[in-house]
Amino acid sequence: MELWFTELHTDNVRFSIKVDRQLYSAQSQFQRIDIFESIEFGRILVLDGYIMLTEKDEFIYHEMIAHVPMAVHPNPRRILVIGGGDGGAVRELTKYRSVERIDLIEIDEVVVDACREFLPQTACRLNDPRVHIRYEDGLKYTRSHENEYDVILVDSTDPFGPGEDLFTKEFYGNCFKALREDGIMVNQHESPFYAKDAAAMQRAHQRIRARFPISRVYQAHIPTYPSGHWLFGFASKKYHPTHDFRPDAWNALRIPAHYYNTNLHSAAFALPTYVQEILQKVEEA
Amino acid sequence: MELWFTELHTDNVRFSIKVDRQLYSAQSQFQRIDIFESIEFGRILVLDGYIMLTEKDEFIYHEMIAHVPMAVHPNPRRILVIGGGDGGAVRELTKYRSVERIDLIEIDEVVVDACREFLPQTACRLNDPRVHIRYEDGLKYTRSHENEYDVILVDSTDPFGPGEDLFTKEFYGNCFKALREDGIMVNQHESPFYAKDAAAMQRAHQRIRARFPISRVYQAHIPTYPSGHWLFGFASKKYHPTHDFRPDAWNALRIPAHYYNTNLHSAAFALPTYVQEILQKVEEA
Repeated sequence: MELWFTELHTDNVRFSIKVDRQLYSAQSQFQRIDIFESIEFGRILVLDGYIMLTEKDEFIYHEMIAHVPMAVHPNPRRILVIGGGDGGAVRELTKYRSVERIDLIEIDEVVVDACREFLPQTACRLNDPRVHIRYEDGLKYTRSHENEYDVILVDSTDPFGPGEDLFTKEFYGNCFKALREDGIMVNQHESPFYAKDAAAMQRAHQRIRARFPISRVYQAHIPTYPSGHWLFGFASKKYHPTHDFRPDAWNALRIPAHYYNTNLHSAAFALPTYVQEILQKVEEA
Repeated sequence: MELWFTELHTDNVRFSIKVDRQLYSAQSQFQRIDIFESIEFGRILVLDGYIMLTEKDEFIYHEMIAHVPMAVHPNPRRILVIGGGDGGAVRELTKYRSVERIDLIEIDEVVVDACREFLPQTACRLNDPRVHIRYEDGLKYTRSHENEYDVILVDSTDPFGPGEDLFTKEFYGNCFKALREDGIMVNQHESPFYAKDAAAMQRAHQRIRARFPISRVYQAHIPTYPSGHWLFGFASKKYHPTHDFRPDAWNALRIPAHYYNTNLHSAAFALPTYVQEILQKVEEA
């Protein structure tokens, strides 16, 4: 038997993975959730038809969303993760002893339950005593918090469906307010290559820049995301992502990582010219 | 009607592009050659079923194979390109006034003829008076040349089929000999992600390191290559790819580029930890 999962990267581009079995399938109040077992990528989490993670390459996304801000902030103690119900970002954050509390705000409890059962590789640290999970809308949650967090990770789905609110002006403004005076927000920032993703990236960049004094974009190679070229936004009240980066301090923590390293940290902010140009278009707008 | 071209990235991963029409198809003495027209990527050159280039993203590969060594060598005058019958690498090289002669050694005349007809975007500078094309086996050609070139670009297909010879110890030794005393060789170096590509990358790295005193690997985001994470090898007799890099001199040339820039040059050598580890395995062997 052959069983193939296919994701449409655009209407004209398909990425297909041979799967061994469908381990889980459910329709929650918010989205369709599927988990597959595959030879090439291990287990795969799919939301509304889009790959959220595979066991083979999820380390890249989760290390890059977590370690970049954590290596810049001199003393990150209180962290907010919005989305990220798979637990991968939380897993990376729990590697830091300095962290006192992680609030995970995930809209969909069904995702967390499914990941706890079928994706222990990412969900393994959700029981860390510092982690507090609330099943709530991220936009609503951020409305009522002020001057509370050192780092906020916006680990959202794409800006279509349940993730849409996490790309709005209001949301970024709320995050700004919820951060302490030297806080840092990092968000998954879509991709520069296919037109629809690039437009989402431009909108996000424009809205974040309007609110944060420091706003930069960095990149990673994530093979199972469309085009493999994925971006993150680094938005900050005080610290610059490379000038205020302290590689020696981070290396002294001896945090295990397979993609992120301190040479790559600054290099990730050196964007290709065509990506710079797309971002500059909205900076000048 | 729907017409889809599919490339197998591995036995378990497929990448498919909706095409409008097949513009060209031939079986040469060496390989099967196809050219398609597509909405998403423009025209696509396929050799033996593998995408060699698309009009949408070929600039990334060609800029990264050409400008990195050209921005390090202080006076590159005589250049050898092996493979590269599509003309994309030659197009980038002809942007340098310092270049006096480019020898293009392509085994398959049918590829060049097809690209001249259907891919003017890459083949456009093959008629530059400095360009000399020879239809010959790259391995054989390099046997009889000594102390002749400032830069050699090994713009090969994968190490299966006609490209196989261009990944051998003998070939790298010939290139070393064909370079002048401060010469640089850059080669397409496969990818670190899928097992078969990573093994090819390791073999190439081991063989190049055995011959060249300076051997480093750099990366680019190439969406239509498997995993989107592609590598190049920088092998050199004298110049270090980042310490001897002269960004101001390159910027003064005002060469138009859409991916490459001088910040990205050094950043491209900052590899993810897992890639460093795969390379170190063969360095220690």
